[in-house]
Amino acid sequence: MAEPIEFWFDFSSPYSYLASERIDELAVKYGRKVKWRPVMLGAAFKVSGLPLLLTVPLKGEYSKRDIERSARFMDLPFAFPSRFPAATLAAARGYYWLHGQDCTLARKFAHAVFRAYWVDDCDIGELPVVLEIVDYLGIDSDAFMTAIATPAIKDRVKQETDAAIAQGMFGAPYFMVDGEPFWGADRLPQIDKWLATGGF
Amino acid sequence: MAEPIEFWFDFSSPYSYLASERIDELAVKYGRKVKWRPVMLGAAFKVSGLPLLLTVPLKGEYSKRDIERSARFMDLPFAFPSRFPAATLAAARGYYWLHGQDCTLARKFAHAVFRAYWVDDCDIGELPVVLEIVDYLGIDSDAFMTAIATPAIKDRVKQETDAAIAQGMFGAPYFMVDGEPFWGADRLPQIDKWLATGGF
Repeated sequence: MAEPIEFWFDFSSPYSYLASERIDELAVKYGRKVKWRPVMLGAAFKVSGLPLLLTVPLKGEYSKRDIERSARFMDLPFAFPSRFPAATLAAARGYYWLHGQDCTLARKFAHAVFRAYWVDDCDIGELPVVLEIVDYLGIDSDAFMTAIATPAIKDRVKQETDAAIAQGMFGAPYFMVDGEPFWGADRLPQIDKWLATGGF
Repeated sequence: MAEPIEFWFDFSSPYSYLASERIDELAVKYGRKVKWRPVMLGAAFKVSGLPLLLTVPLKGEYSKRDIERSARFMDLPFAFPSRFPAATLAAARGYYWLHGQDCTLARKFAHAVFRAYWVDDCDIGELPVVLEIVDYLGIDSDAFMTAIATPAIKDRVKQETDAAIAQGMFGAPYFMVDGEPFWGADRLPQIDKWLATGGF
């Protein structure tokens, strides 16, 4: 069986949200699975020296418009959150803890976190907001809180982020498809063709 | 009649070359014309503070791969030039001089300059290379050389660049379609939908 597609993202990245709503259905067309990997994008920015996109003169203003238009282009609900960027460490840690127990539940959690932030304007940087999602999914919130404070889970996010950077990640979403890297929600059509043709 | 689509580019920008091969046929589907506007992208980088893409750690390496893959994705001939970036001032000045006399010839010249650099690895920053193109198109090369040294033509490139930056240009290709800005060859599908639907 072919290797899964790797999908690195930060919950605070708008284009990552857009991609998260489409990558699984794209992969399944070709009988492929997707490994979802939340990372801390700030660490990649330190390596590349790149500034936060929305703070760049001219490009920042354009990008806000492009994000909203790209959401409409992809027929996805979207509302730019009041507070941006969000601190996504708790959500990322929680994802890896959940993933260790139940992949499907972890995927549901990731979708819920993305949608809370990018559709419903809930600040996922606030722990109570994350815990509300946890509760809603029927997960034990005490166990969740204990888990995200353990050294193993804390290290996990750092390790995954370092591994992504080692694979060339400098922004998100970032994908690896059979050794070929793709960056951006706007590269989904290229990933589709790559999977359909085995590379072009 | 609807306004023409504005298309700002730098001959030294690989994604501009890719877009240059597709924008006219896209526009004509909707009975629209395209105003081609070579500019000095370096001036926009000064405003945005952005570095030259290919020099950014991680992102630079990815981008070279992405450019070559995007060319294949769009079924366009492409070979990364030995010398990059190229100085494109003479070609840009020549374009505006030609455009004042014969729009069609100016368009042919622009295509020839793009292809010389991005397909045939000719350094368009060298004046003899530009003059070879001029000769090939049956243009008087003495008149060309005289024209690109005139203050009016020199000012023109600066004015067009300033005008593009005033419209928000921070990278190339940059398009304006009925007041809506689009950046990147990868936004051609969005431009297509925009023209088809009158905005979305």
